[in-house]
Amino acid sequence: MDPIRVGICGFGTVGSGTFRVLERNRADIAARVGRDVIVTHIGARRDNPRCSTGDTRVSRDLFEVVRDPDVDIVVELIGGCDTARSLVLEAIAAGKHVITANKALIAQHGNEIFAAASARGVSVAFEAAVGGGIPIIKAIREGLAANHIEWVAGIINGTGNYILSEMRERGRSFAAALAEAQALGYAEADPTFDVEGIDAAHKLAILASLAFGIPLQFDRIYCEGISGLSSEDIAYAEELGYRIKHLGICRRTPTGIELRVHPTLIPDDRLIANVNGVMNAILVRGDAVGPTLYYGPGAGSEPTASAVVADIVDVARTLTADPEHRVPHLAFQADRLSSEPVLPIESVRTSYYLRVTVLDQPGVLWRIAQILSDAGISIEALIQKEAPEDQDTATMILLTSVTEERRMIDAIRAIEAQDATRGPVRRIRMEKLDG
Amino acid sequence: MDPIRVGICGFGTVGSGTFRVLERNRADIAARVGRDVIVTHIGARRDNPRCSTGDTRVSRDLFEVVRDPDVDIVVELIGGCDTARSLVLEAIAAGKHVITANKALIAQHGNEIFAAASARGVSVAFEAAVGGGIPIIKAIREGLAANHIEWVAGIINGTGNYILSEMRERGRSFAAALAEAQALGYAEADPTFDVEGIDAAHKLAILASLAFGIPLQFDRIYCEGISGLSSEDIAYAEELGYRIKHLGICRRTPTGIELRVHPTLIPDDRLIANVNGVMNAILVRGDAVGPTLYYGPGAGSEPTASAVVADIVDVARTLTADPEHRVPHLAFQADRLSSEPVLPIESVRTSYYLRVTVLDQPGVLWRIAQILSDAGISIEALIQKEAPEDQDTATMILLTSVTEERRMIDAIRAIEAQDATRGPVRRIRMEKLDG
Repeated sequence: MDPIRVGICGFGTVGSGTFRVLERNRADIAARVGRDVIVTHIGARRDNPRCSTGDTRVSRDLFEVVRDPDVDIVVELIGGCDTARSLVLEAIAAGKHVITANKALIAQHGNEIFAAASARGVSVAFEAAVGGGIPIIKAIREGLAANHIEWVAGIINGTGNYILSEMRERGRSFAAALAEAQALGYAEADPTFDVEGIDAAHKLAILASLAFGIPLQFDRIYCEGISGLSSEDIAYAEELGYRIKHLGICRRTPTGIELRVHPTLIPDDRLIANVNGVMNAILVRGDAVGPTLYYGPGAGSEPTASAVVADIVDVARTLTADPEHRVPHLAFQADRLSSEPVLPIESVRTSYYLRVTVLDQPGVLWRIAQILSDAGISIEALIQKEAPEDQDTATMILLTSVTEERRMIDAIRAIEAQDATRGPVRRIRMEKLDG
Repeated sequence: MDPIRVGICGFGTVGSGTFRVLERNRADIAARVGRDVIVTHIGARRDNPRCSTGDTRVSRDLFEVVRDPDVDIVVELIGGCDTARSLVLEAIAAGKHVITANKALIAQHGNEIFAAASARGVSVAFEAAVGGGIPIIKAIREGLAANHIEWVAGIINGTGNYILSEMRERGRSFAAALAEAQALGYAEADPTFDVEGIDAAHKLAILASLAFGIPLQFDRIYCEGISGLSSEDIAYAEELGYRIKHLGICRRTPTGIELRVHPTLIPDDRLIANVNGVMNAILVRGDAVGPTLYYGPGAGSEPTASAVVADIVDVARTLTADPEHRVPHLAFQADRLSSEPVLPIESVRTSYYLRVTVLDQPGVLWRIAQILSDAGISIEALIQKEAPEDQDTATMILLTSVTEERRMIDAIRAIEAQDATRGPVRRIRMEKLDG
């Protein structure tokens, strides 16, 4: 059979990795696909010494790749949303299949892009957009196709996980761990996207669509980063048998869908609690299969290339297939997407870790317990740290029962209004993540 | 589009689970596939009260299902090899696609079955044959298609893992833990297949084929069970920072492929070391992606049904596709399978845990170290337990460097020939399983 002709737009870390993997494993890949996969055209805005491109045509204008009749599949690896969106839409209009690793693009413009692709009868594949080299999109979209998926919880930002791992293992502050991550190249100079949860929210939007058959709704996600975490809270959590992880969580409830990214206490005997460093892991619970977990490198040149090339192989297999028989972009047929509402964070139900600083005087714990009890919240665990000799305040750590967030907000307000309370109550959500 | 018509042969635990999942999640599944999936015919050799079958046709003769013109896909869930093989081959000859959860059948007759299926232009899918509900076959065959896969190591028998978890967590003997597993229904009355590693070897044969593009070679697998393990060894391993897991391992080496099932020490900080109870996990290392791990329930009615139904969805999508564009049964095109040799166990290279009982007298350790050193083996860790007051023997635990198994066998023979050595040397293989 004729070779599959691939055009790569963007020749940075992932683009050069994709080229390298396709070259190095050419024989293995051809033996799998049953035909050669060759890169016929590379679009690179600047000279890039990362990888020799051999005889492959190279263009400075990325749109040359899209317009090249010798390209069957366009791989978009430039990142960002503006040019990437134009490039992808033009490739679709030209009848080319598209592969992208761009989570921001899919999360924010996926609904438009998939509609255009379906109308034109081409595929847009995006395995690399979530979990790097972990084939999590395939797992949810195809591997768990039998299931009514109940929830997904994932460590889907390696930079954040590295920082939290360093804070726990070495007792570092957030700032010190971030500096270390930057020195190692795990975090950008401006780390906002990673540490404030925006990158994780992009990925969660995608996971939630695939799991629940809802349109992409990035702007409905509640998003809280890790920059406010202290190593003190990490240590207290550990004392109580928990780890703090930055999770993307989506869950079906009878009244709607929870979509949230935030630091989360999880019991330390859960496998996902033991995923450290830059690694990613996604825990998916289906009604038939129960809990399944997928673990691997969530970023990096060749791990991401691994997912891009898997998409190339998949798309190559469906080049001649009737589009109706392809796996739908968002797992469910486009005309059967669900309109289930996304819940506001105030309606989310979870349990909580609370750290309260109080004057070290009798009756304080009793009053806090009373406020929580009046709100229908019970205390499931408690540590009370005696005040050091030279201070008059003590620290109380409480783990609560499950409650609605709006009740907890009110209760915290009431606790903070107590005379004996000093400073704000520190609150972190908690999930059991049991089977 | 017309519904997909499924015939289920065998209505035990997995068959009834498959029927139940298809009924319960009918709407979700149809929204994914774009057409209904209906069970038109069930073959059940005896009455089965597990699940009402509604209006579905039921036959006592399983071959009626295969011959039914109203069946597009035959699901073989009877287990065993003889009737299952005939049933599957007859279904293929009748031009029907086949789905099976039968690892013994695939491991022992897969080469024949896939050849017949390819000749007839039909698919045989077997996701449920390895790792229950974990979509591990899809992950290796499609998700990691970019990679030259280096090794796979898996906890692929839940019964064995349950027994080892009980032995470690509660200090139980093998016999007591087995009895417990039997009482809970995790182990059969005759537990040989599970505890002697035969079930794991069936699954490893399949994983190795998919990973390396070699034919199924069940009879070349070295297979050692867990019935000889003592809780003493589990405790010593723990003292040294290791867990003992029963792993199926396949690995490429420059001289051939290692295929082996045996108890294995692994460092306790590895994620896979922390997979407990009946859960399964498979760790796959690819050259591009690095390490990835897949975790979930490896058996049970609905977890296994989850994989069977995922196969139904996959096959439904390719019903009209050109067979040349389907994913090849063994991941690589049938005419491109590799003939790389399987290494005998004597040529496998690994490190070892040794437990030696010796007379408590001076110079004994020195002589053992000398024997190992002469064989080019170094000691990487050592615990020496002093003899209890009323005994004259002491126990030494040694962790060694990596060596070829034949050298280790000779060294052990030499140690056992020492006057001071009492009884056989207990030896367990050890793997780092690092990225």
